[in-house]
Amino acid sequence: MKGVIAQIAPSVIIDDASHEIGPGDVHAAAWALAGYWHLYPSGTVHVVVVDPGVGSERRALAVECDGRFLVGPDNGGFSRAVFAAKSWRAVAIENAALLRVEISATFHGRDIFAPAAAHLARGTPLDSFGPAVTDPVLLELPIPVQQADAVEGTVVHIDRFGNLVTNVPATLVPGAAEVHIRGRRVSLQRTYSDVESGELLALTGSHGHIELAVRDGSAASVLQAGRGAAVVIKLQ
Amino acid sequence: MKGVIAQIAPSVIIDDASHEIGPGDVHAAAWALAGYWHLYPSGTVHVVVVDPGVGSERRALAVECDGRFLVGPDNGGFSRAVFAAKSWRAVAIENAALLRVEISATFHGRDIFAPAAAHLARGTPLDSFGPAVTDPVLLELPIPVQQADAVEGTVVHIDRFGNLVTNVPATLVPGAAEVHIRGRRVSLQRTYSDVESGELLALTGSHGHIELAVRDGSAASVLQAGRGAAVVIKLQ
Amino acid sequence: MKGVIAQIAPSVIIDDASHEIGPGDVHAAAWALAGYWHLYPSGTVHVVVVDPGVGSERRALAVECDGRFLVGPDNGGFSRAVFAAKSWRAVAIENAALLRVEISATFHGRDIFAPAAAHLARGTPLDSFGPAVTDPVLLELPIPVQQADAVEGTVVHIDRFGNLVTNVPATLVPGAAEVHIRGRRVSLQRTYSDVESGELLALTGSHGHIELAVRDGSAASVLQAGRGAAVVIKLQ
Repeated sequence: MKGVIAQIAPSVIIDDASHEIGPGDVHAAAWALAGYWHLYPSGTVHVVVVDPGVGSERRALAVECDGRFLVGPDNGGFSRAVFAAKSWRAVAIENAALLRVEISATFHGRDIFAPAAAHLARGTPLDSFGPAVTDPVLLELPIPVQQADAVEGTVVHIDRFGNLVTNVPATLVPGAAEVHIRGRRVSLQRTYSDVESGELLALTGSHGHIELAVRDGSAASVLQAGRGAAVVIKLQ
Repeated sequence: MKGVIAQIAPSVIIDDASHEIGPGDVHAAAWALAGYWHLYPSGTVHVVVVDPGVGSERRALAVECDGRFLVGPDNGGFSRAVFAAKSWRAVAIENAALLRVEISATFHGRDIFAPAAAHLARGTPLDSFGPAVTDPVLLELPIPVQQADAVEGTVVHIDRFGNLVTNVPATLVPGAAEVHIRGRRVSLQRTYSDVESGELLALTGSHGHIELAVRDGSAASVLQAGRGAAVVIKLQ
Repeated sequence: MKGVIAQIAPSVIIDDASHEIGPGDVHAAAWALAGYWHLYPSGTVHVVVVDPGVGSERRALAVECDGRFLVGPDNGGFSRAVFAAKSWRAVAIENAALLRVEISATFHGRDIFAPAAAHLARGTPLDSFGPAVTDPVLLELPIPVQQADAVEGTVVHIDRFGNLVTNVPATLVPGAAEVHIRGRRVSLQRTYSDVESGELLALTGSHGHIELAVRDGSAASVLQAGRGAAVVIKLQ
């Protein structure tokens, strides 16, 4: 993919955003992208090729979100970016003149998404790639449930440290002091050093969501919990 | 290595092509390189330091293949690129003026290959590095055997998804519908979505070779097979 | 972090130095940095965010070592670079005008170190970041003990091949021929190819230190030894 981009747009800087998305894990890709797409300068092109449906009839998308571009298969990987953007518009990538001459059935990263991204980076207008798409695939993301004295949430991501990240923004539970998960009561702290090494804690993570962690350890291992696990955050 | 390159050629863009070659796995390096060396623009320098023989008498090579440069130990890592190139020429890297002053016995990547690559990227002619080499080490790569009703091949690579890639180009078996491996008959499909999740299939991979895969899974695990495993592809 | 840097310093080249530091492993970070910080051109900014104490009262540092800059938490990760530098000076990163507006308690890489590094790369003087620091945290690194007929050392690093790297520079044991570790006598060789595949050897590694290795294998596995293991290097 990098070679194809370099052929079309030799002066473009290419960089790797993450090497930690599991094969076919669209949810993890959507989460990772959510953390950084908006931090890059306007005009940046983000290529996201987590593509279990390669070769099927799923569409190839180019999306503009608040001035940044997202390029990849139409499988929900852009969901969190699209939900968070002030404005977005999408097109299906269909213009063969902007793709490789031969399109394989198994590596659209090289044959479709890399050349499309390179042309976007060179300034080719979004509309040149194909017809508008108004119904991109969007993941069904669990929504926190607000009760009188608590918010019920869900683990939506496990990071490389084994932290269990929930769908509950810290701003939704101001003053909360306690998270319940798998029969354990975990105190909500400001940061890791507020507990001893090896101890379980809850805190606000880098995306601004409540997460479970173990200082110098892995909450996923200690709690034997993963994506989909239920959490209850008690309000004061 | 990146620091050494940046000292000699500050404006050169350095990028990582793969982080997935096992220690000393020259076959995997040769396979990875085969997939991309020709996709980069003319003048690109590819540094390949999978180097189990570092410090021995093996030569250090710089090779020009169809306008791209390959730099690394003379151990066969360039075999597939050399076989595929329309033209190539090679030299032994010996000119001490183009290397680090002190050459360690254990890290030629930093001391020989990085500085040589940086000088090539700056435009130093290939002949400046040392004498011509006409007999680079080339891997003995298994060749598919054509029978009346089938082609006998070999697994030559396992990719990070667990796909078993054979040495049989799809163009050699037009219309084939079935691959036999380890007593199993596997149907040849166009792409992953032609079978159910978890199901075994054969298909044409990104290099244009026939490969065995499991949709959303690992064929290497399911078939308990690896490099060297025999396959038979039935012709229609 | 890369996005934040690109916003502030769009023309700066960002690259990854290593993907192999374990979570919170400050010793491994210090060792990795020691191998390359000085090989990059003057003016290079190295960002090192191995940060188990994020959010605590530990300081954020920017250090200038022989013309290169180091940016990261004050936890000892810069120790080996600082010890090796001809000259160094450090400041605490405190000037809010050079950081992100909102500073999270859990991701100072994005909120403090990335913006500070970007401003350094653009030429902002070190003194602009905050007050001088003369007592950075420095790791207590074991020092080799010289006896009449031997040098006693310690394993200080395990590399990705499983090599056990000691704290003994080869220059301290000229002519030595034997290393003792865990009851084994291991001969000191020039390079891997001086022994058979699978055989244990000692040699001078890329940092110039004596290390234990297995040709085409892992000394850490074979010797069941790790960081802190004692070695004795017999002098001639």
